[in-house]
Amino acid sequence: MRVEISKSDSHVLKCEYAVRGEIVTLAQQLQQELLAKPGSHPFDEILYCNIGNPQSLAQQPITFFREVLALCDHPAILDRSETQGLFSADAIERAWQILDQIPGRATGAYSHSQGVKGLRDTIAAGIEARDGYPADPDDIFLTDGASPAVHMMMQLLIRSEKDGILCPIPQYPLYSASIALHGGTLVPYYLDEAAGWGLEPSELKKQLEAAKAKGISVRALVVINPGNPTGQVLSEDNQRDIVEFCKKEGLVLLADEVYQENVYVPDKKFHSFKEISRSMGFGEKDISLVSFQSVSKGYYGECGKRGGYMEVTGFSPEIREQIYKVASVNLCSNISGQILASLVMNPPKVGDESYESYSAEKDGILSSLARRAKTLEDALNSLEGVTCNKAEGAMYLFPCLHLPKKAIKAAEAAKTAPDAFYARRLLDATGIVVVPGSGFGQVHGTWHFRCTILPQEDKIPAVVSRLTEFHKGFMDEFRD
Amino acid sequence: MRVEISKSDSHVLKCEYAVRGEIVTLAQQLQQELLAKPGSHPFDEILYCNIGNPQSLAQQPITFFREVLALCDHPAILDRSETQGLFSADAIERAWQILDQIPGRATGAYSHSQGVKGLRDTIAAGIEARDGYPADPDDIFLTDGASPAVHMMMQLLIRSEKDGILCPIPQYPLYSASIALHGGTLVPYYLDEAAGWGLEPSELKKQLEAAKAKGISVRALVVINPGNPTGQVLSEDNQRDIVEFCKKEGLVLLADEVYQENVYVPDKKFHSFKEISRSMGFGEKDISLVSFQSVSKGYYGECGKRGGYMEVTGFSPEIREQIYKVASVNLCSNISGQILASLVMNPPKVGDESYESYSAEKDGILSSLARRAKTLEDALNSLEGVTCNKAEGAMYLFPCLHLPKKAIKAAEAAKTAPDAFYARRLLDATGIVVVPGSGFGQVHGTWHFRCTILPQEDKIPAVVSRLTEFHKGFMDEFRD
Repeated sequence: MRVEISKSDSHVLKCEYAVRGEIVTLAQQLQQELLAKPGSHPFDEILYCNIGNPQSLAQQPITFFREVLALCDHPAILDRSETQGLFSADAIERAWQILDQIPGRATGAYSHSQGVKGLRDTIAAGIEARDGYPADPDDIFLTDGASPAVHMMMQLLIRSEKDGILCPIPQYPLYSASIALHGGTLVPYYLDEAAGWGLEPSELKKQLEAAKAKGISVRALVVINPGNPTGQVLSEDNQRDIVEFCKKEGLVLLADEVYQENVYVPDKKFHSFKEISRSMGFGEKDISLVSFQSVSKGYYGECGKRGGYMEVTGFSPEIREQIYKVASVNLCSNISGQILASLVMNPPKVGDESYESYSAEKDGILSSLARRAKTLEDALNSLEGVTCNKAEGAMYLFPCLHLPKKAIKAAEAAKTAPDAFYARRLLDATGIVVVPGSGFGQVHGTWHFRCTILPQEDKIPAVVSRLTEFHKGFMDEFRD
Repeated sequence: MRVEISKSDSHVLKCEYAVRGEIVTLAQQLQQELLAKPGSHPFDEILYCNIGNPQSLAQQPITFFREVLALCDHPAILDRSETQGLFSADAIERAWQILDQIPGRATGAYSHSQGVKGLRDTIAAGIEARDGYPADPDDIFLTDGASPAVHMMMQLLIRSEKDGILCPIPQYPLYSASIALHGGTLVPYYLDEAAGWGLEPSELKKQLEAAKAKGISVRALVVINPGNPTGQVLSEDNQRDIVEFCKKEGLVLLADEVYQENVYVPDKKFHSFKEISRSMGFGEKDISLVSFQSVSKGYYGECGKRGGYMEVTGFSPEIREQIYKVASVNLCSNISGQILASLVMNPPKVGDESYESYSAEKDGILSSLARRAKTLEDALNSLEGVTCNKAEGAMYLFPCLHLPKKAIKAAEAAKTAPDAFYARRLLDATGIVVVPGSGFGQVHGTWHFRCTILPQEDKIPAVVSRLTEFHKGFMDEFRD
């Protein structure tokens, strides 16, 4: 007898993850059809703007990072003379340093459950250099990307559906999915689109009180800065408000800071929530704070390597022990990802052989991303009935669609949300894949989509012209 | 205000993981003390026999595998002439093959949520060659080692504490930990120590009925073959009994087959549960079966790379969709681990340049493991009041300690389980780290410990003599 899983009461069934949802499955089908039968669609390739996966769109990895990874994978070549010709001298030196930090130089062994101690030392030093405040290697938990770290914290914080987590709306659906998988309740707080997706402290208070009135015990607040899908960089004032609020209400502050290197506007700068907290005079005893970082984003974009860490401060030893236990059950994160996390927090410095090429690669990627963000932002704002906030950071734009009533009716008739209807039409007409705003949450009655800024720069004009032409046709068809 | 996590009703607090538990923390402290003050203990090094982590004990990785990984990490060197001198020709060829299977050759991109399709093709072909029955790449989900795959299935199967999972006792504590973390109920079935840790079908039936009588809905049965911590290789008859039972009772069969290459006795052979099921004439419609495999075990022992897969057969499309969704939320497993999983399922073949060195490395590791297993098994059986089953497979021995009443009383006075008392004494006297049987579960009133067979072969005589001397002293102290 084959097993069926009953639909009642399953946390899994409640979980949704639009970034790889229906529209992406459909795009993959179209891609197969194009391969099997060229010319079968009005476009010759699928343009994936649905996911922050830079290297899938031909962004090249940073050479120095890959040199070090290769040498750590196969240390037997480290003292061969041919290696000198193939690898930069500082990559060879760094590989030796890293191997010496790994007990027995065994890159194929499980590490300490929190990750290799020497790599955590490097990361802590990197955090210290970034923030200007001390960081403790014992506070670092290395993880396979940021997602498992988020799951670990949700697992720890959520005991039942009576436990709530305050999440921004719109939010990256990892959070709603993880809260659903762990059987908790998402307590929304709405970002203010009119204020560049900023955050109003009174909104936090209002939503907290509303949740309490429903018997929900709110345990933590998620903040994503720079924002996903919204692309804003929070002001320092806003950050201080959030810290103050979490401290006052006794909430764990879960700070998703994976886009910390992705800031594209000169008037904004990334500040970690730890830096902000410490600058307000709040230490270990005042606030429980978790900061998530990943090797998947930034200028490195090493999504496939699954590296990342969380820095965990302000918890009691008893809770630290529980976090450690959950990490132990999963043994450790992958060592290549661990090494890469140490590299992104300690890249080549002035004077190192690789510094110039490293800087050129890094600046090339970041300046191109900034140009792409601006071009797409301008293009979106030039469309009839579309408004798009400034792309200050991260890798996304989240334009608002002011759809004609006729389009909304047509969506209803097709039994789909209006933004999903728009995204589906866009895909069918142009091959451009975006994620409907409903996958991230939005103010009731407003419609959006998330579009990455990641297509190769020479493809951006095509994205713009296809999108513009499609939108014009769409409006011509549905204009009230 | 700092946050405290309330102790009531937390799945995390209920979870235990002895393999990295108290005794290991203590061993790490002793190691620090030895470093800081040589001579401060009656031994000069800690011998970690607590965890199946071969490369931490100087087992060398397979050269061919590491060559391919390094080349895939830094493909820029693939067509440089120096590379020919540094890497074997078939490693270079394999790296090209693998890169061509990865869209855009982007080893730094998230892959398909189930893993790179071409790598899954390779793995499916490897399974087919192993079993003699077809395997479908769409049934393969690549994961960061086997542990996340087990968690995924538990997440899917467990809706509340009324859902039960049949687990062998003794068991690998990943299972009890994962069931606790997901809020389900472990339904034990006892392996028969007197029958070489074999399995009695009537025991399965009895425990299933007992669970049902308590209102537990039993959804799946875990079987670990070769056994952890018990080291047995199940007979084909036993395997058929298990398949028949799961089919009849409508249970998902979760087959932990990560030790499939670790069989040390000539009269036993590994058969996958899929092979057994298919040979009984049971297909997709008859039984829901999940097989877990990992790059951490076998002769490869690549624990730090976190590679593995599960092969999922006999589920409805609706459930497959849910498994896919959970995989999607985690984006994908790390690409190096994915590549390694494809390599272990498709190692060099006769005629390939690396075949001879590969075979020599593989046979060297496996024959040494077999010798170490036998030496330790004999040594344990020669101890007063200790009986140890044959080490047929996996990486562990699980001897039974017939402890004197006086030792049990001393343990009670020290407020610890008798086997934990023994393990602690062993550590303090010899530096040998084993895991008390209570961490795995055992028949009430019996006492065991788990000891890996992994210390380097030249250290085995020291392990044996230190253990023998300690045990003699222990018995002299506590003999009734």
